This record gives sequence, C-alpha cells and structure tokens, in this order.
Amino acid sequence: MEFDLIERIRARATRRDGVVLGIGDDAALLQPPPGMQLAVATDTLNAGVHFPDGTAPADIGWKALAVNLSDLAAMGARPAWCTLSLSLPDAAAAWVDAFLDGFLALADREGVALVGGDTTRGPLSICVTAHGLVAPGRALRRDGARAGDDVWVTGTLGDAAAALALWRQNGDVPPALRQRLDRPQPRVEAGRALAGIAHACIDVSDGVLADLGHVCRASAVSARVEVDALPSSPALLALQPDDDRRRRWQASGGDDYELCFTAPVVAREAVVAALADAACAATRIGGIEPADDGGATVRAVDGEGGAWQPVQPGYRHFVS
Amino acid sequence: MEFDLIERIRARATRRDGVVLGIGDDAALLQPPPGMQLAVATDTLNAGVHFPDGTAPADIGWKALAVNLSDLAAMGARPAWCTLSLSLPDAAAAWVDAFLDGFLALADREGVALVGGDTTRGPLSICVTAHGLVAPGRALRRDGARAGDDVWVTGTLGDAAAALALWRQNGDVPPALRQRLDRPQPRVEAGRALAGIAHACIDVSDGVLADLGHVCRASAVSARVEVDALPSSPALLALQPDDDRRRRWQASGGDDYELCFTAPVVAREAVVAALADAACAATRIGGIEPADDGGATVRAVDGEGGAWQPVQPGYRHFVS
Repeated sequence: MEFDLIERIRARATRRDGVVLGIGDDAALLQPPPGMQLAVATDTLNAGVHFPDGTAPADIGWKALAVNLSDLAAMGARPAWCTLSLSLPDAAAAWVDAFLDGFLALADREGVALVGGDTTRGPLSICVTAHGLVAPGRALRRDGARAGDDVWVTGTLGDAAAALALWRQNGDVPPALRQRLDRPQPRVEAGRALAGIAHACIDVSDGVLADLGHVCRASAVSARVEVDALPSSPALLALQPDDDRRRRWQASGGDDYELCFTAPVVAREAVVAALADAACAATRIGGIEPADDGGATVRAVDGEGGAWQPVQPGYRHFVS
Repeated sequence: MEFDLIERIRARATRRDGVVLGIGDDAALLQPPPGMQLAVATDTLNAGVHFPDGTAPADIGWKALAVNLSDLAAMGARPAWCTLSLSLPDAAAAWVDAFLDGFLALADREGVALVGGDTTRGPLSICVTAHGLVAPGRALRRDGARAGDDVWVTGTLGDAAAALALWRQNGDVPPALRQRLDRPQPRVEAGRALAGIAHACIDVSDGVLADLGHVCRASAVSARVEVDALPSSPALLALQPDDDRRRRWQASGGDDYELCFTAPVVAREAVVAALADAACAATRIGGIEPADDGGATVRAVDGEGGAWQPVQPGYRHFVS
C-alpha cells in the first residue's frame, strides 16, 4: 500500500459491520458472522481488454466492482467487503478521485466496505476481490442443474455487446446501451432471492450460450435455448431491425451481467414471485436435458426448432 | 476464469479444510472456523516493477504468493486460502505450468489452498489475495508500539536490495543473494509466535526505516534505529566491504520480507524463546520513543550516536 495515494483512498472508503481493521495495516481484519460461509470472487480489468480506451475513470471504477459483485450475485451471496489493487502508469490524483467516485458509489449502494488493497506502478489494471456471506447450503452453484429444469435469464441481453460493436465502428452509441456497457448492474438482490429456489446459477459475462455451457458441464447435463425467447431491451430493438444479428449479440455477446439460472418447472411461480420482490424481470429461454452421448452441450434453436448457429462462440480470453 | 488455462490451474490447486467449493464456480465458498477473525491481504506484482525482466516464471509464482503471506505473517495470522488473478500477454501453457511450480510449492509448504481467481489477457501482472485466520485480539497491528519498546527485526536485511543493485549493474549476483530476491521466505511461524508478545509489527518490504515509519505514524510514536545493529548475512558481508553502503541496502533497500516489530523490554526473553521455537533469528535494532514535536519520526544513528542519513528513503511507488 503506497502512501499518499492510499491515504486518499482510506479517507473515502466505506465502512460497515464486521470490519475490525480496515485500510492501513499489512492486512485487513474481518469478523465473519457466526456460521456463515464466505463467497470470494476475484476479477481483473485491464485497459483495452475489458473496457475501451477512453472509458471515463468513474465508469471503470464502477465496473471493476460490478463484475465482482455480479459473481457474488450468481452465488446468492450478500456482498460484505472488498479489496482493491490498482496498477497505474502514473500517480494521477484526479484520476484516482474520479475512479473512486464510481467504485464507491456502487460500494455504498450495495453496503460493501473497501477494506484494503495496494496501489502500484504498471499498465492500467484493476484487480478487485469481493467477499460475500451466504448461509451454509444456500449458495447457488453451477453444478446443480437437472434434466427437466427450465432455463431462465434475468433482465435483457445484448445491450453491452451492441454498444461495444457500435463503439468499435466509431458509430454513435445510444446512451441506454452505453450505460449497460459502462455501468453494469449486478443482480445482487435477484441472486439472493433465488437462493433456495434455483438449482444452478451463473452470471452472464461471456454470452449466455457460453456461460450456460459452464453450467451444463459442471452439472453433466445439456441445454436447449430458444433464441427467439432471448429478452431484448427497447433500446436494442430500436437499434437493430435485423433479428438474426440482434440475437447474436444476445446469445454470444458479453458484459451482460445478468443471471442465467435453472429451476424446476414446479418453481415457476416461486421464481416470478421472488424476482418481483427483487424488482427484477426474468424470462424462460429454454430447458435442461440429459447430457448427449457427446457430453454436455448447449443447443440453440430458432422458432421452427431448427439449429441456430451463433457466429462467435462467446468471448474467450484464452483457448488452448 | 478462462477455460482451459483454468482447468490447468484447477487440476493442480492445493486443497485444505474449510474449502466448501474451490476453483470453477463464480466464487469460492469457504467456511471460516467459529469465532476466528479473517486477515485479508492483496498485493500485485507487475513485470519490470516488482521483478526484473527475465525472472524465472517459477520464481515469479513463488514471490507473488510470498509477498502476501508476508503480510499475513506481519498480522500473526495463519494462512488459509488464496486467490490468483493472472494477466498474461499470451496463453503460454508452459509458462503457466512453471509459474505454478513456484506458486504451489510455497502454497503447499504453508498449507494454503488456491481457491479461485481469473486469467485474462494483458501485460504480465499477478494479483494475489491471501486469507489468514487469527483469534480475536491476537492480531499484530501497526498501531500498538509504545515509548520504551525495543525495536526488533527478524533474520537479516539487505540481501535482496544488494542482489537487485548488482543485477542492474549487469554484475554477477551471488546465488545466496539472488535467492533472497527471487524466493523470499515469509516469516509466517515467527509472526504467529509473536502474537501475544509483540506490541506492533510490520513486514519489511520497502526498507526497514520506511516501514518502521509506518508503525510510528500509526502508533503516534518515534523510533531510534542503530544502523550498526542492522543484521547482515554472511553473503552480504562477503560482498560489501564498504560498511556505509551495506547499511544503505539494509536500512533503505527493499524486498527483505522480514518482520520488524516492537516489544516491551520485559519481554526480551519471551521474544527470543518464541522465535527460537520458530527457528528464526531476531536482533534488537533500536527503541521506541515519544513522538517529537514534529510528529512521528524515525531517527537512524551510527555507532557514535550521530545522525545517519540513508541516501534514499525507502522504495516508494508513488509519492504525491
């Protein structure tokens, strides 16, 4: 932790229950509530890889925390504490202040205390570790999907991917889409509401087909997704009259930070009621089936039930 | 967490008690033991900043975990779990395997489970978050030093700084010194042994004078350090006949990862006995005094009691 920059961060850091010792020592000291399990997620954002060059520092700060809270949401955990490791090419106090505006706005809203971290010199990179709390046996995992389950997704898909595509083409990006790219809203309340109802859950960061594939492999099942059912925002519908292209953004885009989950058919009403309490829309987009001979697969079908082939199979950083 | 690279890491990750769910979901699930507090440290290593270009990947892996375990050691905490966020310019499986050789060698030795993280594309950067356990009220903090305390340091100082200086001059680096730079040994057992005895503690990463300064500011005291007392390794003594230069590496170098701690004079025997059990040498290097009018300061004195001025005031990433 490096001196004045750390002081700057410490002076503004959110506090909450359970923080015995926050920023400023060799490590933070935290007191977990008795009996609760800890959910721990770490994600790094690198300039030019996870956000376009020129993204406002406040948006980078927001997103660096949001993608981690989205992971906690997908576990059904209540966010509690986070650490922030910030690599910066130079010591720009104004940049850090603006970054913290976004980071702490989301931290405050979600009741997350920033308890430690470090700042260091290097290419712009932000590594956040987020800690959440969940009662034993209540966590939503990837490995609980069962044949016969419905497949659901919260909110709408494809806005962020469309915004990124437009930005890459130097086109005008409608503000509603750009907002989805820059200020993703982690589905924290929805995830907690689904604990005890959903069988399996994942957050949609690499495209719903790719992410559902992780659930299928972990659960040793296959899935069928009806691309016509993928939920669209009004802004996306207004932007893109070409249905096929829109569905590609929705099925294989990325940066949605919605939850994709499976639940038994008998729980349909419970799902709707739980998510209504969390002020979150959800749509059934398909079903879970027994694994094929070839293993766990995700089959996308169009309105006539024919195979529908996305152009790119989700965003992959590395594939060997 | 990105696909095949993650599988590679998961297949080799250490496990231990308390890991309900390790690598492979949106977040790890951990069960802290009843009543224990959690110590959480995060540190990032960037290529060219925290290790010389050309450092062996196994050494980078070792050091990325070691610097975090050193932070837990300085709290008197027992390491338990860690996450790893790895940014790589390309997907080099051989590099990752070698990196894991070093990382997991230390993790296994210290009983630390690797429970999650992510891999992503970007300039080489490693962010580790380490979790340790400590009983309430037992943690070693920076803010407990009191006037009249002795100041102690474990092991010897300056080897890593000397190795780095030689490397920068393209000189031959004696293996014993290079080892201290590349494979720092976190003082985990020593830190745990000092819990309940020491008043304050910090790990020495930026030079002992600079790090002791953090203790003084947190504790609102000043300190006197006798530079002639700074402990030297045989390899450093053999390398450097110039006492003054050697003491600069020892006082203001960096990357020592020893513990600097304060303890009351009546605890001298207890300190020696506790550290003997931990197979760790320790040396008294000065004392804590009331804060000066100008605030908390660290005064380095030579054998005649005169002021001794280090050339550089510790390694600082950023100072505004």
